[in-house]
Amino acid sequence: MKVLVINAGSSSLKYQIYDMTTETALAAGRVERIGMDSSILVHEPHHTDEVTEVSEILEHTTAVRKVLDKLTDPEVGVIKSIEEIDAVGHRVVQGGDLFKESVIVDAKVKAGITSLFDLAPLHNPAHMMGIRAVEANMPNIPQVVVFDTAFHSTMPEKAYMYAIPKVLYKKHKVRRYGFHGTSHDYVSKVTAETIGRPVEDLKIVTCHIGNGASLTAVEGGKSVDTSMGMTPLEGLMMGTRSGDLDPAIVPFVMMKEDLTVNEVNSMLNKHSGLLAISGSSSDMREITEGMEQGEPNATLAFEMYVYRLRKYIGSYVAAMDGVDAIVFTAGVGENSAVIRQHTCEKLTFLGVEIDPELNKIRSKEPRRISTPNSKVEVLVVPTNEELMIARDTYRLVTEAK
Amino acid sequence: MKVLVINAGSSSLKYQIYDMTTETALAAGRVERIGMDSSILVHEPHHTDEVTEVSEILEHTTAVRKVLDKLTDPEVGVIKSIEEIDAVGHRVVQGGDLFKESVIVDAKVKAGITSLFDLAPLHNPAHMMGIRAVEANMPNIPQVVVFDTAFHSTMPEKAYMYAIPKVLYKKHKVRRYGFHGTSHDYVSKVTAETIGRPVEDLKIVTCHIGNGASLTAVEGGKSVDTSMGMTPLEGLMMGTRSGDLDPAIVPFVMMKEDLTVNEVNSMLNKHSGLLAISGSSSDMREITEGMEQGEPNATLAFEMYVYRLRKYIGSYVAAMDGVDAIVFTAGVGENSAVIRQHTCEKLTFLGVEIDPELNKIRSKEPRRISTPNSKVEVLVVPTNEELMIARDTYRLVTEAK
Repeated sequence: MKVLVINAGSSSLKYQIYDMTTETALAAGRVERIGMDSSILVHEPHHTDEVTEVSEILEHTTAVRKVLDKLTDPEVGVIKSIEEIDAVGHRVVQGGDLFKESVIVDAKVKAGITSLFDLAPLHNPAHMMGIRAVEANMPNIPQVVVFDTAFHSTMPEKAYMYAIPKVLYKKHKVRRYGFHGTSHDYVSKVTAETIGRPVEDLKIVTCHIGNGASLTAVEGGKSVDTSMGMTPLEGLMMGTRSGDLDPAIVPFVMMKEDLTVNEVNSMLNKHSGLLAISGSSSDMREITEGMEQGEPNATLAFEMYVYRLRKYIGSYVAAMDGVDAIVFTAGVGENSAVIRQHTCEKLTFLGVEIDPELNKIRSKEPRRISTPNSKVEVLVVPTNEELMIARDTYRLVTEAK
Repeated sequence: MKVLVINAGSSSLKYQIYDMTTETALAAGRVERIGMDSSILVHEPHHTDEVTEVSEILEHTTAVRKVLDKLTDPEVGVIKSIEEIDAVGHRVVQGGDLFKESVIVDAKVKAGITSLFDLAPLHNPAHMMGIRAVEANMPNIPQVVVFDTAFHSTMPEKAYMYAIPKVLYKKHKVRRYGFHGTSHDYVSKVTAETIGRPVEDLKIVTCHIGNGASLTAVEGGKSVDTSMGMTPLEGLMMGTRSGDLDPAIVPFVMMKEDLTVNEVNSMLNKHSGLLAISGSSSDMREITEGMEQGEPNATLAFEMYVYRLRKYIGSYVAAMDGVDAIVFTAGVGENSAVIRQHTCEKLTFLGVEIDPELNKIRSKEPRRISTPNSKVEVLVVPTNEELMIARDTYRLVTEAK
């Protein structure tokens, strides 16, 4: 069985095709600049070199058609015909409190995703465009949606409620949802396998730190708290997002700088975080270089980032009253030994001890970086949200047969 | 030497008069409803019963005159004449980054406090009215201002900077200031004395939880982080304040409910917190009663309050990489054994163990409530911000002589 995984954004569409008998990715790729001049399609088959094609792709249906053309191309393709694709799985950012797990797409599911546009105005409309584009190209194919929020649906009320008038929850569904759920779910399961203990017995803090970043407290395999909130703005400092902030700063800045609601949102989501503090980059690699060269703004950005990460780890350990494992994943988590080192070196109160040599190793495999004496296991686990989406898609479509 | 301590609000004025040779409070009291019909003066001399007087007090100069009348009254007074008062100390909420310690009031200091009106629009203008009212009644008396923010001026940049465009810091001084500093300072010093170790050697988490609430990480006697931010809204859940929140909720709610900047501020500061979640009360005593009677909203409010408090303790322990003592103070911290118990019982990962019997004792004295086996000392220390203000006032005025 072959499953196509799609992550549709408003002007982009990422894809990956899996052979589920072996769980191998046959090809991956992305379409960028949809709706703009000179859209780009980058196709990366696993058997040969990647190809890049520039053309005009004005909307998502054309984007999906171009992807299918590449997948079935005699030279760079990986399947003979579209019929080989048995199902399509989509990443959907916001499932609200409607979707607690992955589901097969039907009219009701589409209406549900649409009803959540307000809560995820940048993401859910784009996901719906992806779903419709697949329908247009492959009218009878089963589609599955996998939600970033679903893994967090186990959070208790005390963790997901905000201390604001309850009418806002009732009327507008204002609560913590959390994101990156598929990743937190995946890395916590791989962590349990790697250390050879059942996930049901473990308290794990999963640190998904990429351009977006969130932490999750995973107790007994379930999310009990997570740092992103109603939107992906809350929590850790990120590439261009502020993370936590005195909420009173928002109206204060709106008033002082005469900003609209949209402008202040844009400021906090796109012009804050590492970028704002360093004044030069939202990329942790460049921030780290700047710090190593003694550049004061980069140094401050680095220090704030690590300090806030460490405080969140502490708060989630307190939330679970203990921790068995701390796991790093995603771009920064998987690749930045220096972030892991700085974060862990001041967690001696937990008995955390990492091995500097193990920490330096670069690998695509899940691995322990703590010493045998460490009271807490520390791991690096490369995330694989696409595989999780492919698995859920395969499972649901097979069950439905 | 006698020192009068004043805490002036926009429609209230609290006072306390100290004999500094013995550090005893001779009388305390408050004027309420200044500028409204039937203002109330409550005077509590330490030698006899309190007296309450209802009259018309339209502004702060009259309020101070009425207080001085009571202090020198032949029956309920505690001094013979105004001349016995050697100095007046004022509580000032916001010292911004202008004031890192208490100072004697002069023209420059008054201009400084006034320049901070923007950052503390509810507090600093009222404090200035208090200072001017004292000048009007006692033209030559030395006055001292003690800032809620001063103790936190030792926070490192990584703790006080927000991850938002730096121009907001440069132009509008947007940063974490923290409040309740006089209290955090006082209880951390008393904690060191009580456990018999120098404060310089200790890592302490001070929990000032009253109607307003903040936590501070006190390392070596210095504040290194605190939960209130640019304003007293950030941090813990409070009586009527939301505390932490996804910052994106602010513009979202403004848009959905068509709220102005002032309205959303009012919602977050006055109609949130325990009050919003319980739907009935901002008072922890009533919340606790509700919880004990199984009322679901009160139970949720209680659980959220404790959960957030515990997470903050965890984050500050991580900030300092360890903790020697956790201290509870202010209304809830001093009086609610059940809050202390619920907060501490899930801190076993730190080796915290409190003695249920010691925890139940009600007293005005600082006291340990942890067991001899506890790896962290847990204390209850009644706060005394007025005494700290009186001490600073006495010290500065004596030094200036």
